[in-house]
Amino acid sequence: MSKAPAQVELICVGNELLIGKTLNTNAQWLAKRITSLGLSVRRITVVGDDLDEIASAIKESIQRRPAFIITTGGLGPTFDDKTLEGVAKAIGRKLEENSEALEMIKRKYRQYLAERRIEKFEMTQYRIKMARLPEGAKPLPNPVGTAPGVLLEWEGVKLIMLPGVPQEMMAIFDESVVPLLREVAGNLTFYEASLEVRGVAESDLAPIIDQVMHENPYVYIKSHPKISERTHRIELHFSTTSDSQNAARRRIERAIIQISELIREKGGKIRPIQI
Amino acid sequence: MSKAPAQVELICVGNELLIGKTLNTNAQWLAKRITSLGLSVRRITVVGDDLDEIASAIKESIQRRPAFIITTGGLGPTFDDKTLEGVAKAIGRKLEENSEALEMIKRKYRQYLAERRIEKFEMTQYRIKMARLPEGAKPLPNPVGTAPGVLLEWEGVKLIMLPGVPQEMMAIFDESVVPLLREVAGNLTFYEASLEVRGVAESDLAPIIDQVMHENPYVYIKSHPKISERTHRIELHFSTTSDSQNAARRRIERAIIQISELIREKGGKIRPIQI
Repeated sequence: MSKAPAQVELICVGNELLIGKTLNTNAQWLAKRITSLGLSVRRITVVGDDLDEIASAIKESIQRRPAFIITTGGLGPTFDDKTLEGVAKAIGRKLEENSEALEMIKRKYRQYLAERRIEKFEMTQYRIKMARLPEGAKPLPNPVGTAPGVLLEWEGVKLIMLPGVPQEMMAIFDESVVPLLREVAGNLTFYEASLEVRGVAESDLAPIIDQVMHENPYVYIKSHPKISERTHRIELHFSTTSDSQNAARRRIERAIIQISELIREKGGKIRPIQI
Repeated sequence: MSKAPAQVELICVGNELLIGKTLNTNAQWLAKRITSLGLSVRRITVVGDDLDEIASAIKESIQRRPAFIITTGGLGPTFDDKTLEGVAKAIGRKLEENSEALEMIKRKYRQYLAERRIEKFEMTQYRIKMARLPEGAKPLPNPVGTAPGVLLEWEGVKLIMLPGVPQEMMAIFDESVVPLLREVAGNLTFYEASLEVRGVAESDLAPIIDQVMHENPYVYIKSHPKISERTHRIELHFSTTSDSQNAARRRIERAIIQISELIREKGGKIRPIQI
């Protein structure tokens, strides 16, 4: 494992996340997919529907120079959909009507009217708003909803803006973002496994984890106590990234065999967990 | 509503959040509780178990001067529990063994041994680690698990470090953090309600939301399309913060009555949703 995985930052936009109304399943879904594609999520930032907050978060993230910044939320037609304005502000570009994006939105809208046998076609400012992208940006087709995703390159960072509606976000990610990530990821693979341990305190597992990680330098082992440290049901999670699926599996297996022996010596019980 | 709510930032520490293994329910739970106590969550940051990343996130957050920074995760006995070291690094203090914290950990450990009729009592470096707090910090009792929470004031910002195990985090929050938040919150209340709208496109709701928010300046209205913009099942979420529960409810009711009329004029259907 000579090559470090390419880095991705996620920025999730939406007051609903900051008031606890919505659980951020988008971030988890993206993090899992990105990790399994062989890249590494370095940071997740959640900000509200506020122009300055969005622009600051984007700016700070660009300064850390990840390969990708992926945002979710704030692409729709309402006043508080401000992500594209925030991106434009962060990089000092203007918003401009993008003809390709406008075509995508018109097509969706015509389809919507046809399904309802409505004849009046009107491109209000609210519908046009979804086609106002930062200069130089490219729309990414939305196979599920109306607002297109947006792709923009700035100072070597690829910025990708996705809608907040999960089905739309996932569809654009799978169709348009995965190919971009694969280009950068090379053939790295993420591999993981879990064990459940009973009968040993987490503070007694700590030196065992130290030892096994020292002897298996490419395997990352993390303990997750279930309910509380004192109940002593602990999940041990093993992960590694490699350009060979076989090498990755062998590494993890070796670490699991070693740690299992040490835990049994301490009187602990072990069983594998399905991830 | 003259007074703006006091600001809180959340920093969640844990590789499991960045690889998508764990859904960040801690952030949602905290955000909901903090909002309902009359404070406002400004930003949520997720970083991995990395000393520099934790220290940077804390430093950047302190510079934005929230009233509180609350962290979750990274207080346990293993090598990758680095939150306190990260905080110490961010503010240029050292870690030191805190006698009050050490007493709390010893008491928990004695209890654990007694329950299992084990006689050998040994305070290993891994158990002592949980008592090494930044200079000047105060431990917060953990009624569920072993690692205490930690409270520290720095440049007018109250830093509160909580464990990542949800039951422990919630217990320390309810017992020790809520009183601190209440002191700052005064008597502000957060009030919210939701409507479900059918038969109107989100882009046609946008001008209606604009108008009603303009006429109800203290009410924030946000549309949440369900599944996709084109299916036209949209949740409208209303929220406000006030020092009077009654005033807050009246404000929201007034906005709901106005918007309902405008939506019906457009041929839309409305029903209330339980939050």
